[in-house]
Amino acid sequence: MNKQTITIGIIGAGSIGSLFGGYLANISSDEYNINMFFFGREAHINAINENGLLIQTKTDSIRINNIIGYTSPKAYLRDNKDERFNFIFLTTKAYDIRNALFEYRELISLTNWLVILQNGIGNEEIAKDFIIDSKIIRAITSNGALLTDSGTVKHTGEGFTKIGLAFKKNIAKDQKTQAYNSLELLKSLFSNAGIKIEMEDDIIRNCWEKVFVNIGINAVGALTRLRNGELLERNELKKLMRDAINEAIMIAKVKKIKLTDKDFVKLCFDVAKKTKNNINSMLQDIMKGKKTEIDFINGRILKYGQEFELDVPINRMITILIKGLEDSNL
Amino acid sequence: MNKQTITIGIIGAGSIGSLFGGYLANISSDEYNINMFFFGREAHINAINENGLLIQTKTDSIRINNIIGYTSPKAYLRDNKDERFNFIFLTTKAYDIRNALFEYRELISLTNWLVILQNGIGNEEIAKDFIIDSKIIRAITSNGALLTDSGTVKHTGEGFTKIGLAFKKNIAKDQKTQAYNSLELLKSLFSNAGIKIEMEDDIIRNCWEKVFVNIGINAVGALTRLRNGELLERNELKKLMRDAINEAIMIAKVKKIKLTDKDFVKLCFDVAKKTKNNINSMLQDIMKGKKTEIDFINGRILKYGQEFELDVPINRMITILIKGLEDSNL
Repeated sequence: MNKQTITIGIIGAGSIGSLFGGYLANISSDEYNINMFFFGREAHINAINENGLLIQTKTDSIRINNIIGYTSPKAYLRDNKDERFNFIFLTTKAYDIRNALFEYRELISLTNWLVILQNGIGNEEIAKDFIIDSKIIRAITSNGALLTDSGTVKHTGEGFTKIGLAFKKNIAKDQKTQAYNSLELLKSLFSNAGIKIEMEDDIIRNCWEKVFVNIGINAVGALTRLRNGELLERNELKKLMRDAINEAIMIAKVKKIKLTDKDFVKLCFDVAKKTKNNINSMLQDIMKGKKTEIDFINGRILKYGQEFELDVPINRMITILIKGLEDSNL
Repeated sequence: MNKQTITIGIIGAGSIGSLFGGYLANISSDEYNINMFFFGREAHINAINENGLLIQTKTDSIRINNIIGYTSPKAYLRDNKDERFNFIFLTTKAYDIRNALFEYRELISLTNWLVILQNGIGNEEIAKDFIIDSKIIRAITSNGALLTDSGTVKHTGEGFTKIGLAFKKNIAKDQKTQAYNSLELLKSLFSNAGIKIEMEDDIIRNCWEKVFVNIGINAVGALTRLRNGELLERNELKKLMRDAINEAIMIAKVKKIKLTDKDFVKLCFDVAKKTKNNINSMLQDIMKGKKTEIDFINGRILKYGQEFELDVPINRMITILIKGLEDSNL
């Protein structure tokens, strides 16, 4: 039986990119043959090229040796002339999306599908400047991963991953079957790789519903330096979180996002409770003196508010304060 | 010639209290004889009782040996039965005002005048619960002081000090002359001590006008961890500062504070510019893991807003975030 060769690229092979790319490269199947290319930072890429990628789970250590790493598109193109990709995953931090798309634009012109696996909302609108929108798949995940060393990624928390077409409406009728077949292929690859996966009819809605939780928790946690559970111990902070989420829900409605009828404030508080000892990712970034993803969380609400001339004072203030905090060297 | 004996107590002899108390104790005059009592923390008080207080200025070191220190009102009363005070200065941090007044209530019953020398607004309203309002003098200062060691205070920046009657309207007609004579005495003591002093007809207005600057700078600096000058480099932060000050001006007007026609936003920006390398006191407190004076700055605007049922969203949010930050142990 002839195996189908699937060529995948991971642009921004950090923690999540390496975890997913590693699991996908490790697929053992009679149907597929995986060609996996990682694009990332030098130390990590060198370690992978020399010793393979090590994935540590709670119970196992898996070494994956069929990944080829590059630190630039130029180096890749020198070795691999005009080979097409089935999927390129974009897994940089959200704030790097435009720079990454620009730097890797030649590679992106060689892929059938661009899969944006990032936090935040509105990311796909930036990708539209670099690839036709009907070729964009949006993915979100609640899996946790951590690069513990160059060449080593730890799977810190199991979760689920959701995928869907970012601009479903813009796909021509005669292209729809092909698009869904590609999504099915991607789903099947994830399943084979052992990653829990769901296909979503309206993935943009899922992105928004996920970001509501981040809008409530992340920046407020970063500004107050409180753990998720500590936020819930203060009624005034809960009110602030609620107000921020309600502004975002208002913007979602104006953007015609078809939200489910969940109580997103309650959802946010439930998540904060379940993760009560967590230092949220934005607070971690601030504590490490790194840039945050504020522009794709509360900052996105502010941006859309400005577009629609709707005031979102809570998200505006939160965004401004976080941007100030990012610039602090104290 | 008979010298007049002036007995002064300093409750909360920290940096500013020790500086002013020290200069006052050091008065050399044919008219007055100063009895100076400090009330403060054990290490500082012990050092003063053993070796006197050392004041370091830019050019001099002055050792003052006629201060008697106590760590509690009980110890003082055991040694000094029923001696009256001409002036008791309250120089604790603003948030300690109620505790200090309660702890020292017996001493306060023995003073002719209570001089509240603290940051913030509304402090005198708390003192009213412990002494008749017509006996309250309010003072503000722009002098800078720092306790560099037990028994040693450094005069870090020269400024001016303003005094006035906190509840001028509540003084009976036949008591007015006496009140102004006491203020004149206090002014003359400060002058003799080498401290630049002004008497103000409406000191509460001065407190508000000073706090407008703090409302703009302190909490915003503490939340963003930016130095005073860095705040001015960001237009959105300047807008936030302006909005916070404008809410405070609105509240001042409702409180019938007769403001001068200065541009307080400009004043705040000018101060931030002049002190551009400063880490403001609230940010210093946060960085040291200490409680801040938020309740007497932005928090006071929030409290008055609630009393008058006026929303002050910017000051509300700032106050809530700082209170969260105070509780962080990260």
